[in-house]
Amino acid sequence: MSLENISCQKCFGGWTKRYRHRSNTLNCDMVFSIYLPPQVEQGEKLPVLYWLSGLSCTDENFMQKAGAQRLAAELGIIIVAPDTSPRGEDVPGDPDGGWDFGHGAGFYLNATQAPYDRHYRMHDYVARELPTLVEASFPVSERRGISGHSMGGHGALVCALRNPGRYQSLSAFAPICNPMSVPWGEKAFSRYLGEDRAPWREWDASQLLLNTGEKLPILIDQGDRDQFLSIQLKPEVLQVAALAAEAPLTLRLQAGYDHSYYFIASFIDDHLRHHAQALKA
Amino acid sequence: MSLENISCQKCFGGWTKRYRHRSNTLNCDMVFSIYLPPQVEQGEKLPVLYWLSGLSCTDENFMQKAGAQRLAAELGIIIVAPDTSPRGEDVPGDPDGGWDFGHGAGFYLNATQAPYDRHYRMHDYVARELPTLVEASFPVSERRGISGHSMGGHGALVCALRNPGRYQSLSAFAPICNPMSVPWGEKAFSRYLGEDRAPWREWDASQLLLNTGEKLPILIDQGDRDQFLSIQLKPEVLQVAALAAEAPLTLRLQAGYDHSYYFIASFIDDHLRHHAQALKA
Repeated sequence: MSLENISCQKCFGGWTKRYRHRSNTLNCDMVFSIYLPPQVEQGEKLPVLYWLSGLSCTDENFMQKAGAQRLAAELGIIIVAPDTSPRGEDVPGDPDGGWDFGHGAGFYLNATQAPYDRHYRMHDYVARELPTLVEASFPVSERRGISGHSMGGHGALVCALRNPGRYQSLSAFAPICNPMSVPWGEKAFSRYLGEDRAPWREWDASQLLLNTGEKLPILIDQGDRDQFLSIQLKPEVLQVAALAAEAPLTLRLQAGYDHSYYFIASFIDDHLRHHAQALKA
Repeated sequence: MSLENISCQKCFGGWTKRYRHRSNTLNCDMVFSIYLPPQVEQGEKLPVLYWLSGLSCTDENFMQKAGAQRLAAELGIIIVAPDTSPRGEDVPGDPDGGWDFGHGAGFYLNATQAPYDRHYRMHDYVARELPTLVEASFPVSERRGISGHSMGGHGALVCALRNPGRYQSLSAFAPICNPMSVPWGEKAFSRYLGEDRAPWREWDASQLLLNTGEKLPILIDQGDRDQFLSIQLKPEVLQVAALAAEAPLTLRLQAGYDHSYYFIASFIDDHLRHHAQALKA
């Protein structure tokens, strides 16, 4: 696998970069962003926090809007932000032109249904192919954290819960906690996974939490003025599952905050410190 | 004058808001962004930092990408970010469709040439009409700072240098320091102000600095990998003028940084503290 560097911008003493590469998992070219803090120039091997963005985002939104580089530079954490779906003319999108399915909306799962199964294997890309590439190309330690927002919060929870021991830290902002029971998830799962709902449980954090061996502490922030809270996100379902499974979930309802990057920016430092505590231990 | 609130998003305990209003100066509707830190809810009157953005930006770029709200919330500074030009179907743009003149490129001056003189009076808007509106509508003190980026750095310098005593603090990121002698400025000034170059001096920071009574300390950060540095920005001309005028200019050349918001985000805290020192005194 080879990496093509397509941009390199100094930021808080480190570098925000973008790379293009061929993905064998997704059968298309992919772009990801990476923040390399200043410590990489001293030859230190640093842990990586993977950030999964939400519907309609690319690899760039988080790097441009979350303000995470300031504290990542201080703590010495690399951040990797993949794109939110396979891309390209060959990759089928939403036949209805929606923004909540297809391009920009890969839902971080492995599709089983044609024509999506040829490209939409974002879980394997995010949890396997991309870390392998990153670990072969940058001075990283073997410690990994994962976080994300909305669809990407769902992705972060599912990646960690399906792969016990693979991540050492986990958090999410306003995740889709119970996708198999909400409109965004029902649309995506029925097309990517088929109409039979039984396999959907394998991609639903609230279901996975009941049966996983992964017992990582989970930090979730959720704005109480989030316009998607009651219809699409359903943190209360995850909370009930966490109680049943005795999983260490800290769910913080943040008064007045919405679903935007202004919300993420306001609390990203808490999440970075949550990850640093586990990743730098 | 009446203000129409068009968005309101909680951010670091305060609020990032956008307002639309009729501008009599510009003869069109205008939108600005404002960050109100949490202290406004305790009834404190706070100083205002005006931020002027660069070519092709709107009122939103700075609020979304600079990461300024975190420290503004801590310091108790209101930030107001106007749009970069008059807008609307009635407002003439660049006849050649360029992005460096017309819509998004008002250059913070008062045009004297038809057809631009009817709308392009961004200096009077930024230095007079908008502060009057802000001071009548929000809990602000009488202390004002001004800063900006690129074309907006030029605007900040010119606003302060043309209006001694009006601002209590001044800074800029990668400003166009000598617009009358660079391609961006020559294109804009010849159209907004006419082919006679004599009046151009009234809108050129390096010229104004030689003749102003304003002796505010000026903080400027400039990336040494900025792709526009040698052709468009020319901080060395401003530095020579500052030496001649005995003006207190601190020009910091930042190694490795480019012209982007990653550069701004990396040093915005220093600028906020520079302004706070004067505004909160």
